[in-house]
Amino acid sequence: MTAKPEKPLILVTNDDGITAGGIRNLIEVAKEFGEVWVVAPDSPQSGMGHAITVHNILRLHETYDHPGVKSFSCTGTPVDCVKLAVYRVLERRPDLLISGINHGGNNSINVIYSGTMSAAVEGAVEGIPSVGFSLLDHRWDADFSASKEVARTIIRNVLQNGLTKGICLNVNIPQIPYSQIKGYKVCRQAKAYWADDFEPRTDPFGKTYYWITGELHNEDKGEDTDIWALDHNFVSVVPVQFDLTAHHAIADLNAWNYEDEKV
Amino acid sequence: MTAKPEKPLILVTNDDGITAGGIRNLIEVAKEFGEVWVVAPDSPQSGMGHAITVHNILRLHETYDHPGVKSFSCTGTPVDCVKLAVYRVLERRPDLLISGINHGGNNSINVIYSGTMSAAVEGAVEGIPSVGFSLLDHRWDADFSASKEVARTIIRNVLQNGLTKGICLNVNIPQIPYSQIKGYKVCRQAKAYWADDFEPRTDPFGKTYYWITGELHNEDKGEDTDIWALDHNFVSVVPVQFDLTAHHAIADLNAWNYEDEKV
Repeated sequence: MTAKPEKPLILVTNDDGITAGGIRNLIEVAKEFGEVWVVAPDSPQSGMGHAITVHNILRLHETYDHPGVKSFSCTGTPVDCVKLAVYRVLERRPDLLISGINHGGNNSINVIYSGTMSAAVEGAVEGIPSVGFSLLDHRWDADFSASKEVARTIIRNVLQNGLTKGICLNVNIPQIPYSQIKGYKVCRQAKAYWADDFEPRTDPFGKTYYWITGELHNEDKGEDTDIWALDHNFVSVVPVQFDLTAHHAIADLNAWNYEDEKV
Repeated sequence: MTAKPEKPLILVTNDDGITAGGIRNLIEVAKEFGEVWVVAPDSPQSGMGHAITVHNILRLHETYDHPGVKSFSCTGTPVDCVKLAVYRVLERRPDLLISGINHGGNNSINVIYSGTMSAAVEGAVEGIPSVGFSLLDHRWDADFSASKEVARTIIRNVLQNGLTKGICLNVNIPQIPYSQIKGYKVCRQAKAYWADDFEPRTDPFGKTYYWITGELHNEDKGEDTDIWALDHNFVSVVPVQFDLTAHHAIADLNAWNYEDEKV
């Protein structure tokens, strides 16, 4: 038996890639709380959702971008990074997984497209207390100073209180100075969808290709949603689960006739 | 005002690619019920989860693999296919979206990694009644005859009864002849996880790379789960939602102290 290590082991990942400003800021905060290991994609992986790499190989390289922490870049997706970290890189289970800070919001329906949040969901599947952080600012040189304060508050709470099994947190931060943030709202995910468009272009060889574009439509007038909180200068905190069962729909489905075609 | 078209418009997609046996069988069943349009990946996209293509272009090509239906292959993910179909290819909203039939099961936690199911979830986000079908047989030459009977029963029910807003169905079919299937069980998603391994290999240049491998661990002894149903020769039908909010965790999070660091 070895004595319980005193410092929490904190795994950091993201989907913007290991060199992004958001992860650099998150690592700085994490170092205040424990021993930090980083396994993150070697290139941007936005919109990768819960993708894993099954038809291709993965590579892992030690990097030295982040002083004072062990750091590895991976050719795969954010979920690959979590799996590699847990099953191949780390010598023990992490006490905390944090993902981000994403350059851009992951509120409402964006949770299902987000590589940042999929890494956190994967952590939850693995039974690790996990949080995804996102700042509502897509710019590469976004100012993460308010986000660092938020990360500090959330990390302290998760380490002190733990998280309910089977959930992780989706934390979104409005694009305003810290002094203007009104506080924290624990929310539900707003019901919204992307009205997409596909911009057609012609390549130099005369063939058509498309770029996805789109606009988020909020259909939800509730004041208990993440969109409402962010619009009103609060940090939104949504507990996210990986049990996707719509329990309320089971009774209706049990009333169906499944017999007609059965021989 | 134009008269309501008599035949339902059915969109078919998958994640194994437009030439897979599973989608060919699903198209055959769909043609019995309505006008069928296919938009599916041009290559296998297993494990793509809810990925969308934001950092690269998309191409769309009309194909002629499937007689009697309009059919397009796409360079993107299953979710890209659904978005392209809805916003660029189809002239009206489909009455039904069906995805699959997947070569391999998507029960329990696999729902979050599955491209087949992500296409169905994206349909639900778009407000389209949507179903993902998966057969517990990974082989390229799997026998889909029982799956076709199952697809017929489910499609008939969805067209007759509709689906609750905000959900889609995850239908998994055991790998047995139709005469041995005991019936249908409406289930919840079993709590399970993949114990992954990363098999290291050395490339011809002396560098290490990894293949992901793993084993599904079922931690759930419930008899109301999809794993239980499939183990007992039932078709499993799980209603799946895209609101990931863990409502039961909100009260705990409201008890946290968010104030310490706030100036």
